[in-house]
Amino acid sequence: MWARVAARLGEDARHHVVTFGSDRADFEAAIGDAEALVTDKDVLAPLLPFHAPHLKLVFVANAGLDNLAPFDWLPQGAALLNNRGAHARKAGEFGIMAILMLASRVPQMVTHQRAGEWRKLWGGIVDGRRLTVVGLGALGGAVAAQASHFGLRVTGVRTRPEPHPDCTEVIGPDELDAALASTEFLVLACPLTPATRNLLDRRRLALLPPDAGVVNIGRGPLLDQEALCDALDAGRLSGAILDVFDPEPIPSGHRIWNTPNLIISPHTAADNPGTYYELSLERFFADLKADREGRPLPTRFDVAAGY
Amino acid sequence: MWARVAARLGEDARHHVVTFGSDRADFEAAIGDAEALVTDKDVLAPLLPFHAPHLKLVFVANAGLDNLAPFDWLPQGAALLNNRGAHARKAGEFGIMAILMLASRVPQMVTHQRAGEWRKLWGGIVDGRRLTVVGLGALGGAVAAQASHFGLRVTGVRTRPEPHPDCTEVIGPDELDAALASTEFLVLACPLTPATRNLLDRRRLALLPPDAGVVNIGRGPLLDQEALCDALDAGRLSGAILDVFDPEPIPSGHRIWNTPNLIISPHTAADNPGTYYELSLERFFADLKADREGRPLPTRFDVAAGY
Repeated sequence: MWARVAARLGEDARHHVVTFGSDRADFEAAIGDAEALVTDKDVLAPLLPFHAPHLKLVFVANAGLDNLAPFDWLPQGAALLNNRGAHARKAGEFGIMAILMLASRVPQMVTHQRAGEWRKLWGGIVDGRRLTVVGLGALGGAVAAQASHFGLRVTGVRTRPEPHPDCTEVIGPDELDAALASTEFLVLACPLTPATRNLLDRRRLALLPPDAGVVNIGRGPLLDQEALCDALDAGRLSGAILDVFDPEPIPSGHRIWNTPNLIISPHTAADNPGTYYELSLERFFADLKADREGRPLPTRFDVAAGY
Repeated sequence: MWARVAARLGEDARHHVVTFGSDRADFEAAIGDAEALVTDKDVLAPLLPFHAPHLKLVFVANAGLDNLAPFDWLPQGAALLNNRGAHARKAGEFGIMAILMLASRVPQMVTHQRAGEWRKLWGGIVDGRRLTVVGLGALGGAVAAQASHFGLRVTGVRTRPEPHPDCTEVIGPDELDAALASTEFLVLACPLTPATRNLLDRRRLALLPPDAGVVNIGRGPLLDQEALCDALDAGRLSGAILDVFDPEPIPSGHRIWNTPNLIISPHTAADNPGTYYELSLERFFADLKADREGRPLPTRFDVAAGY
């Protein structure tokens, strides 16, 4: 795969000295000389901190690196890179799927099915309806793009509220409260940082219209899971579709397994196994080339911002 | 609504003599003089047959009129009309939603959720994957259009296999068997007629790849429901999303309520209550105008073909 992706990107793999490893011993044997590290956040986390005096590029094949924070383990002079964009296509498809499911009231249908009850339940088309997407990175941007194809009016929420081609309007986080009252579908697609933790708390959940639908494809702690379950148990909201939880995996016997009008996806919304590693490697090679040519690194992770 | 829709279509409602009724007495008082009847299939069915010597147009605000067959009750010289097209937008959204759900393995996720089990389950993007749509009328055509936006390769199946802008290929019913082996997603969106009853029988279900997904938005008896449940119980197919059943409503205690990897929608997939009646009336007024001008009636129902 390394040679294939390198060839596809015009990168001459004969100039690479590559070591592949699968355990701590492999890592320790190679990291002292390594100039670049390609890894995965769950593989890397238990290896922190480490000594790597030559390391320049640390590529982690994930989008959200919150479990590696704080980033004080990063060797001086090394750049942290993620695989931003590798998840976009699948996340966009999952996002619009979830919005269409909420519009068709699938979470409620599934709840009725579980009870063995035939109850007519009408949904509606999404054309012209109001979607708020929190986070306009690769994931949120892909959801906004699919949503605009379906005629949804998209309000994007991001730290720097500049215009976005697939959003009717883009607002800053300080304007979120005001936007919630007219939000019919809310998609959380932002990274988990100290600023976004518990973003959709009990107070903000109560600002949503009673038949709004909630989707979370970011990180579990972006929302107050207990408050969401309380709302659904009380018959508020039309439904929720969650891909991320706090904690993960969801413990056996947790109330969320039986919360009505809620659908659980096991943190795989943005993954497309058929292309995931090749797309990630493509990003690494693009970073490698940019580094060699002295250009800004395309997937550089801003350790101060946390994304 | 009558006056509003008439005005929107440039139809002068002052020339209409309209009677509205809600029971058999109302119907019998008016039908003897009526030149046109606008009704619903479930309202009309118990009133059959009836005597209406002046009737020219019988407009039924539904797409599938199979429960009114055989059509020997239709007064001589009267044309039967349906509301074809009124369901297209919602059916297209439901259809692509169902395909995306199967691609993301939502039916299996819901089954795991019901068991309270966290099991990682990876789906994939739909770009380049193979969809077969049986029926290319308003419903199937709308599903094909949304699917082609997502990059699916669509094989359409229809009686007269002429090219369709959203299909890679269009085949006749006699070629369906051969197409099933490479079908990843199968959507049934055709009318129920003697020719389509039990179309997806036990033998054809076995021709599908073991991880194919099945969607039915046509009519319940298009498929062998017992054979489908047997396949899902045996772990064949990636899932099924059904909006129509045999019988409806599904009886309490029926095995299908607990069949794994199957999602039940209560025959509302194609309905968008916010626009349904206005869109239907638009179609009636288009028929009325065409009749006055001696043109073919746009939504004329072919009683011989059954759609």
